[in-house]
Amino acid sequence: MINKYTRVSLLVVLLYLVPCSLIAQEKNNIFQYSVISALMQGNYDGNLTIGELKEKGDFGLGTLNHLDGEVVILDGEFFQVTSEGLVNRIPAESLTPFAVVTFFKAVERKEINETVSLNQLTASIDKTLESINFIYAFKITGKFSYVKTRSVPAQEKPYKKLVDVTKNQSVFEFKDIEGTILGFRFPSYVDGVNVPGYHFHFISADKKSGGHVLDLMTTGVTIEYAKQDNITIAIPGEGDFLNTDLSKMNPEELKKAEK
Amino acid sequence: MINKYTRVSLLVVLLYLVPCSLIAQEKNNIFQYSVISALMQGNYDGNLTIGELKEKGDFGLGTLNHLDGEVVILDGEFFQVTSEGLVNRIPAESLTPFAVVTFFKAVERKEINETVSLNQLTASIDKTLESINFIYAFKITGKFSYVKTRSVPAQEKPYKKLVDVTKNQSVFEFKDIEGTILGFRFPSYVDGVNVPGYHFHFISADKKSGGHVLDLMTTGVTIEYAKQDNITIAIPGEGDFLNTDLSKMNPEELKKAEK
Repeated sequence: MINKYTRVSLLVVLLYLVPCSLIAQEKNNIFQYSVISALMQGNYDGNLTIGELKEKGDFGLGTLNHLDGEVVILDGEFFQVTSEGLVNRIPAESLTPFAVVTFFKAVERKEINETVSLNQLTASIDKTLESINFIYAFKITGKFSYVKTRSVPAQEKPYKKLVDVTKNQSVFEFKDIEGTILGFRFPSYVDGVNVPGYHFHFISADKKSGGHVLDLMTTGVTIEYAKQDNITIAIPGEGDFLNTDLSKMNPEELKKAEK
Repeated sequence: MINKYTRVSLLVVLLYLVPCSLIAQEKNNIFQYSVISALMQGNYDGNLTIGELKEKGDFGLGTLNHLDGEVVILDGEFFQVTSEGLVNRIPAESLTPFAVVTFFKAVERKEINETVSLNQLTASIDKTLESINFIYAFKITGKFSYVKTRSVPAQEKPYKKLVDVTKNQSVFEFKDIEGTILGFRFPSYVDGVNVPGYHFHFISADKKSGGHVLDLMTTGVTIEYAKQDNITIAIPGEGDFLNTDLSKMNPEELKKAEK
């Protein structure tokens, strides 16, 4: 039989654990591992596990070590879209060299009920944002008449720069597909740290297709979004990151690598 | 008389408060309010109080609203160096438009026992750093044969750009003075977010002099420093920040404003 002191002790332990995990899981703050200038220069091996990343967010995007595909994170599920177009659940022990996550909680909502391309969609969103100097997370759900995505194959050392890897990217086209496009809009002042402007990944409703979004066409989607109050950047502490010349990032190469 | 249940309850409350505040005060992480590109464009009014900033660090630098002087934060004390060269303790309700703090804990130590200028000092530090892609905090303590600092006068709206304000900065020269030079080294990839390279503020041992460091000469100082594992940037949520064109920051203007 459990006596009252044991019960009180158990209560103490429980009360102990709850608030700190709540603090750790603040909504609408960005956690980012490494910086885009490092990924651009070919730093494809990081030291953060997907298990550790899960503690920092349930929503976001990134890649895996060796640049092995595109990562899509939705509702706490972590998906890898390989260069063959396959979607895998990512084991907790997998490592990432670059990822951007948040505990997503929609603050605003916008419906699109006209035929729009990716550029028209982002132009329409731009008009509704309170400030383009804020960081925003977006979750765009609905049916797409067209989605064009890409993924990248796992690399071997010596690593090429990202702009050179994406010259041989796999491109996928989907028609009449339901799913979620998710990602971020970052302001211009973060240009060595993250991707200025919109950056979206896609995962289909059946979780069988996805990738880094290159274009889309839709006649009706729901856009949920949230301003992000803080961004925390974890600086990799070991590996190639230490000795790479990160002053060399070329904004034009970033645009090419993302398109 | 306090019975044992009350005692247990008090214990629960105590245990509750301790670990979360410890988590909040993690060592060697940077907290930054706003971004340097906003300060450069004349965003001199923020919404973070010094009281709130104290919860984020006990060491660092910044300025106050209206660009009213240079802020030096050492051992949990917050000092304002005015454009008249006076040093004031800053009340908790004062607001800042830009500040960079950490809970400083020295990880490495280096002694300088030769005559060096600021440029020679930073060149010497550069040689000992594990990676210039890391963020570092520095606390440089000792006797200086010469320190040249500046401060800036409180501005009135419409605000001029920082590079124009610093054309009329107050410059102070000190000889044979004991004190602490403290600040940070940021990598090139943060250039819209913070100041790439070294950024130091000075406070004398008697807490009567200080400012933004322009030059120095010393024959012996102790340098304590620590790699920073994470940086958290709080994005201002209101005010001029929302409507300022932050894409216009010119790296040459930043160099001029800091020299």
